[in-house]
Amino acid sequence: MSKVGIPQGTRDFSPIQVAKRSYIFETIKNTFLKYGFQPIETPTMENLSTLTGKYGEEGDKLLFKILNNGEFLNKVDKTLIDDANYNKLVPALCDRGMRYDLTVPFARYVVMHLNDIQFPFKRYQIQPVWRADRPQKGRYREFYQCDADVVGSNSIMYESELIQIYDQVFQKFGLNVTIKLNNRKILSAIATVAGIPNQMMDMTISIDKLDKIGLEGVKNELLNRAISVQAIDIIIDCLQINDLGILKTKLENSEEGMLGISELEKAISMSGITHNKVEFDITLARGLNYYTGCILEVKANDVEMGSIGGGGRYDDLTSVFGLKDVSGVGISFGADRIYDCLEQLDLFPNNNINQTKAIILSFDYVSFNKALELSQKLRSEGFNIEVYPEGAKFPKQMKYTNDRNIPFAIIIGENELTNSEFTLKDMDSGNQESLDISQLIAKLK
Amino acid sequence: MSKVGIPQGTRDFSPIQVAKRSYIFETIKNTFLKYGFQPIETPTMENLSTLTGKYGEEGDKLLFKILNNGEFLNKVDKTLIDDANYNKLVPALCDRGMRYDLTVPFARYVVMHLNDIQFPFKRYQIQPVWRADRPQKGRYREFYQCDADVVGSNSIMYESELIQIYDQVFQKFGLNVTIKLNNRKILSAIATVAGIPNQMMDMTISIDKLDKIGLEGVKNELLNRAISVQAIDIIIDCLQINDLGILKTKLENSEEGMLGISELEKAISMSGITHNKVEFDITLARGLNYYTGCILEVKANDVEMGSIGGGGRYDDLTSVFGLKDVSGVGISFGADRIYDCLEQLDLFPNNNINQTKAIILSFDYVSFNKALELSQKLRSEGFNIEVYPEGAKFPKQMKYTNDRNIPFAIIIGENELTNSEFTLKDMDSGNQESLDISQLIAKLK
Repeated sequence: MSKVGIPQGTRDFSPIQVAKRSYIFETIKNTFLKYGFQPIETPTMENLSTLTGKYGEEGDKLLFKILNNGEFLNKVDKTLIDDANYNKLVPALCDRGMRYDLTVPFARYVVMHLNDIQFPFKRYQIQPVWRADRPQKGRYREFYQCDADVVGSNSIMYESELIQIYDQVFQKFGLNVTIKLNNRKILSAIATVAGIPNQMMDMTISIDKLDKIGLEGVKNELLNRAISVQAIDIIIDCLQINDLGILKTKLENSEEGMLGISELEKAISMSGITHNKVEFDITLARGLNYYTGCILEVKANDVEMGSIGGGGRYDDLTSVFGLKDVSGVGISFGADRIYDCLEQLDLFPNNNINQTKAIILSFDYVSFNKALELSQKLRSEGFNIEVYPEGAKFPKQMKYTNDRNIPFAIIIGENELTNSEFTLKDMDSGNQESLDISQLIAKLK
Repeated sequence: MSKVGIPQGTRDFSPIQVAKRSYIFETIKNTFLKYGFQPIETPTMENLSTLTGKYGEEGDKLLFKILNNGEFLNKVDKTLIDDANYNKLVPALCDRGMRYDLTVPFARYVVMHLNDIQFPFKRYQIQPVWRADRPQKGRYREFYQCDADVVGSNSIMYESELIQIYDQVFQKFGLNVTIKLNNRKILSAIATVAGIPNQMMDMTISIDKLDKIGLEGVKNELLNRAISVQAIDIIIDCLQINDLGILKTKLENSEEGMLGISELEKAISMSGITHNKVEFDITLARGLNYYTGCILEVKANDVEMGSIGGGGRYDDLTSVFGLKDVSGVGISFGADRIYDCLEQLDLFPNNNINQTKAIILSFDYVSFNKALELSQKLRSEGFNIEVYPEGAKFPKQMKYTNDRNIPFAIIIGENELTNSEFTLKDMDSGNQESLDISQLIAKLK
């Protein structure tokens, strides 16, 4: 007998959880489609060589690798085993690994299918990824990413579309959010103005921690990274600016800075979002160093939670696979955190959760046959209908209906058979009424 | 630079392929929901001990195993490596494997979540599975299964519902199919009547090959399995019966046989499907030996293809995980084969393929701004709309529209700006017309 359990960091999803997650994925997907994004899917398994070296040394460790099938030792040099030389042993034992994110497979896809793609290529991808991270609250070893990217165009219109997509998706969820924007060119200009153009990454990494360590903490970080006090003063001064107009006066001598500001202004104005959902945040840095233009991040206003979305513009997606000059801009939704937000704020729509509209209950062979007939009629009208199988006692049938949270029970008893009527019981209120078939259909609608 | 490729037996799916596959999954899913089935999802990775030994020796070899992370040699007895003792080495190197089918994870799910489940539990599950099979035409190492099962009830109503689901799904696809039915009790009764009750499995395995080797082939198979000529005559005689009435006279002394016939009659009559889509097929055996009652299989009538669906009733789903007496009935759809059928018969609906309704083309800064404004208006009306970014020459914009197969182009030129009108071009017919905004919306609907 096998012991029953699932691997650490993985999850089963119950019917209610699947329904809630589908609601999130469908909302995001439909908004992607509304803007002409097209879906692709890539395999769970990639060649290990496609994945290795793309996520840094730490990332390589967190890849899940798939053991070669058959007599896998035949290909392995035994000294690697004796020396416990894991760096060489893993690729000898494993030709394949599991998808770690959606960006690298997307880059690989673009290069492999170049001739079939029309640029600008607007693709979305909603698929699970796997990471051997230490599991903790809100962090799983299997989780979904929801990405949209446009590659092959520099138009800032796409930044504005992605801002609109964030706005519309979270509006549909009923979630109040702030879309924070910044531009890597502005950060780079600040580094230049502060006289440390070559330490821009050091500066960015420090700024990225502002939320956690505060301004004083950032100062100390910068000092520890051997940045001069004068430079730090300029940086800290800039970090307190939250108005693009004022920033312009600070960066007026930096062509790069002025370009970054103008890109931001364009993106915001084209998005047409005037209310205060979109916010310039000069302290927004985002760790990933492949971003080169606008960067975005979404925070929920009414609940304590890390960012629930993020993205930005990059200059180079595919050169690691031999294709230069593929630039683009993309965003991602954090589905698991969004789930937690909607749960905490009780924002999941009720009617989405239990997809069965009604169950038909019967008492004997004759009423059961009537139930079968009625079920087909109601299903053909578009309702999701369950029939309780013949022969169970009524309390048992009601208990099942209750436990399953089915909103309506349709009861066929002796009276109902004689009068060609049905009793509709609203399980929430407990109210019952006698209805003929057309009234029943109207009521269920 | 990484070489670009994907593992053997895996696939990328392009936007059109994803759309076609979604059409299949959505149709199946919505029909499952119509009958009150509820979705569950289980993790890609299961504990290897959950999977091992459940699919026979051959199946164990075809499992994909995931190499333990970190210093995985520490847990391994080196003599296993020296002896190339793969049977013991694999579980020492790998705690986890990848989902091989949906039945074993479902059984594991039922046992783990017993207290949260209401029985009868109608669950569906549409998820990929992985098998290290040798790849060949139509056989992949990553492919989807679409399963629906009801566990915890013996009611034949569920067989009838599953027949209806097959009927309705394939009707929606526009695919002519035959739903073949048999009952394991009938096969068992034939074995008893033929005097070989203990060789029922031998008989079933031979009959299962009828399609491939013909009646004479089955005879030889049975002879090779040491079944007597007299028994074979009785079996072959029975295999030629295609009418339940006649079969009754043959099996009238077998309680089991008569029960099997009555279950079939009930399932067919309750399904209410009277046309000749449902067919009793005494030669239908289905290899899996956990079936104990009705068995089903679906064949496409108008295209050469293996079965595109199958299932049956079983007595025992979960005893391997320590829970006895969980019986049920289930079916599965073969999504990849259905895809091939619909492709060969040109049955995919056109409007499902390219989900972008229209693209807006513009000429200059002013018309581009008008395009942005119009796009938001049309999206708020529910249309999926793309805007070509500013600045490209018109032929380039038209080429993109053509290559993307977008059905309509909305063109904003100088005239259009002056008259507040738009040119709508039907890309299929090439027809153009000038429309104001409300005419445009009406036309796109």
